[in-house]
Amino acid sequence: MTVKNAFYAQSGGVTSVINASACGVIETARQHRGKIGKVLAGRNGIIGALREDLIDTSKESAKAISALRHTPSGAFGSCRHKLQSIEENRAEYERLIDVFRAHNIGYFFYNGGGDSADTCLKVSQLSATLGYPVQAIHIPKTIDNDLPLTDNCPGFGSVAKYIAVSTREAALDVASMCETSTKVFILEAMGRHAGWIAAAGGLASEQEGDAPHIILFPEIAFNREKFLKRVQRCVKRYGYCVIVASEGAQYADGTFLADSGVRDAFGHAQLGGVAPSLAEMIKSEFGYKYHWAVADYLQRSARHIASSTDVEQAYAVGAAAVDMALAGKNAVMATIERGKGKRYRWSVGEADLNKIANVEKMMPRHFITRDGFNITEAAREYMAPLIAGEDYPPYKNGMPQYVRLKNVAVPRKLKKRFKI
Amino acid sequence: MTVKNAFYAQSGGVTSVINASACGVIETARQHRGKIGKVLAGRNGIIGALREDLIDTSKESAKAISALRHTPSGAFGSCRHKLQSIEENRAEYERLIDVFRAHNIGYFFYNGGGDSADTCLKVSQLSATLGYPVQAIHIPKTIDNDLPLTDNCPGFGSVAKYIAVSTREAALDVASMCETSTKVFILEAMGRHAGWIAAAGGLASEQEGDAPHIILFPEIAFNREKFLKRVQRCVKRYGYCVIVASEGAQYADGTFLADSGVRDAFGHAQLGGVAPSLAEMIKSEFGYKYHWAVADYLQRSARHIASSTDVEQAYAVGAAAVDMALAGKNAVMATIERGKGKRYRWSVGEADLNKIANVEKMMPRHFITRDGFNITEAAREYMAPLIAGEDYPPYKNGMPQYVRLKNVAVPRKLKKRFKI
Repeated sequence: MTVKNAFYAQSGGVTSVINASACGVIETARQHRGKIGKVLAGRNGIIGALREDLIDTSKESAKAISALRHTPSGAFGSCRHKLQSIEENRAEYERLIDVFRAHNIGYFFYNGGGDSADTCLKVSQLSATLGYPVQAIHIPKTIDNDLPLTDNCPGFGSVAKYIAVSTREAALDVASMCETSTKVFILEAMGRHAGWIAAAGGLASEQEGDAPHIILFPEIAFNREKFLKRVQRCVKRYGYCVIVASEGAQYADGTFLADSGVRDAFGHAQLGGVAPSLAEMIKSEFGYKYHWAVADYLQRSARHIASSTDVEQAYAVGAAAVDMALAGKNAVMATIERGKGKRYRWSVGEADLNKIANVEKMMPRHFITRDGFNITEAAREYMAPLIAGEDYPPYKNGMPQYVRLKNVAVPRKLKKRFKI
Repeated sequence: MTVKNAFYAQSGGVTSVINASACGVIETARQHRGKIGKVLAGRNGIIGALREDLIDTSKESAKAISALRHTPSGAFGSCRHKLQSIEENRAEYERLIDVFRAHNIGYFFYNGGGDSADTCLKVSQLSATLGYPVQAIHIPKTIDNDLPLTDNCPGFGSVAKYIAVSTREAALDVASMCETSTKVFILEAMGRHAGWIAAAGGLASEQEGDAPHIILFPEIAFNREKFLKRVQRCVKRYGYCVIVASEGAQYADGTFLADSGVRDAFGHAQLGGVAPSLAEMIKSEFGYKYHWAVADYLQRSARHIASSTDVEQAYAVGAAAVDMALAGKNAVMATIERGKGKRYRWSVGEADLNKIANVEKMMPRHFITRDGFNITEAAREYMAPLIAGEDYPPYKNGMPQYVRLKNVAVPRKLKKRFKI
């Protein structure tokens, strides 16, 4: 039996710990050189495979690979490209097989979220559908925390920590100025479909009256009157009001708050998100001085404030994926399983990919307070361990030292080019 | 001679290290109990003095005061209230004297920026103008770094570190996705008049091609054509373009970019800042996919990523202010002096307050590249040491532990109330 190479790719929006999963894959594969060959990474995700644009990770030093553990974003590049079904685009699958065969690839590690799980599932079926033997293992990654069958998703813990810490810090700022200045502060968090990230802002509070005073979830229909009333009540009671709003916050009819319908002179939709829309709403109703922040990519790349639990889990699912491949598995995803008992414990499990692809896990209703404006104790208990622990990157001259890989291309073996 | 009490107040926009200065003042005063009485803090800044709303810091434990060193924002509250001249509002000064006399206050420590230096200067003249003996010492604080006669301002180093780190991290995110997704990312930084904070984004780059590719300063008139051309060149050359824009970026005629002139259905000015305006400009010209972030208060409260140089300097100017008071000084400000030589060294100096009040220090032109879009080596050499070193707050359950003072009010002694 010849030793097969592995293909690894990063997919979808990146996180501050996806490279920790890459580190787990590559370091574990290197420990099994007799059973698994090189790890070839797709440049810019799956399109690297389709274009036969592969990166030879064996050209990277052990030190460089180790540094992936503390380097945010996708070191090999990522993409948003969902494979269609084999009936719709057979050419793509045939191309994948050509590339896999040319490079002796027998293992397919795909590091992504829900859409990527779907792609990974399709690849796992190549043996059955097109007769090419390949084992496909999915490695979960998403700041959105919306994958089913895993207790949580690597990537979420760190963005949650960022939002919780930022909320606590900005709230102290507002509290100290509110007597004569800003009374309302709005932090817009990512999460177009599920409110997990905004919910994490709730971890900033320790006691009654603490910020955030209002959290807006996509799962709860936005009610302008109820919202404004609550803002006013907070300002009267506490002197200020801190709001964490999910970018996916929406009215009952599904219209996003961010889409205010305002057009500029050229007919373009008005710029900008939920936070400025809410600020304007509050200002026009009460005249309160406001400030708002949109963290955007800062939140999902903030490796400097990553959760050590998250980093460890991201690494562990990468390492476990290799173990699963070596154990002959296919069409599975590494999962995080939470132990029973009060003290948080976790281990890596596995789940069938066909139960994961295209399923979105929303915030359970009992994680949101009855009034719809905050998180419950159950949500806190679920989220708190995920942000636990600090895992600081190394610094030099005051700046975090993130690794820059050489990303040496594997020489092309196919004559045919592939357009995507 | 009876031992006089001290008054301490925080003024203007808060920073992540202004409480470190408070810590320096209080801890140093406590070391000289025979010469200086209690430190009474103004609740919400100078208006606490006018309202006779004083906080007795002697009620706080040594541990709590020590924790101020790692707690962001203003622990006693701050305000934006500039005293008018004694000719314009004599009543305010007479009230201050009434309060100072009632509470045996002989030392006035004022912790703020340019406007506050002006207030401090006026108080320093009370002995000459109204016959009340008080020594007024200014403690510099501003994220804007725009005070003259001090090499830098406590508060700037930490916000600079935040912007530099965030730029580096977000740039990695964009770089890893740009092949199929976002090509332009814009981070809006604070600094309405001076471009120091945006300039700090430049510290993110290490070599040619690194982000940020463009920095927009208030000091350089914005030229739409030149800017768009540069954006396009970056996208073509590097695959993406990262921009750090000062909120004060403006056209040659002084119009802020943030004021796009767009009005909503109610005639309100369009929401939101420079970043979304630039994004829309780029989108309508080239159609590039973009993302933008507005860090707002997050940047000036981010104690979790404070510069240890900044923390030490903030503490030192607070401590030095007390030493100056005990040495009989009046109408001075503690400054940071940079030593000569390649290795960064600093010490605390002093400057006359009348040379500081109402003077703004802009970015020198030679700190900005000739094309106006980036920082020079001279700027890097100036800023780099200010962000050096990490000074992490303590964490518990994944969250930074910031102190909540008791802030016990000093019993009022005056019958008269004062309206401000």
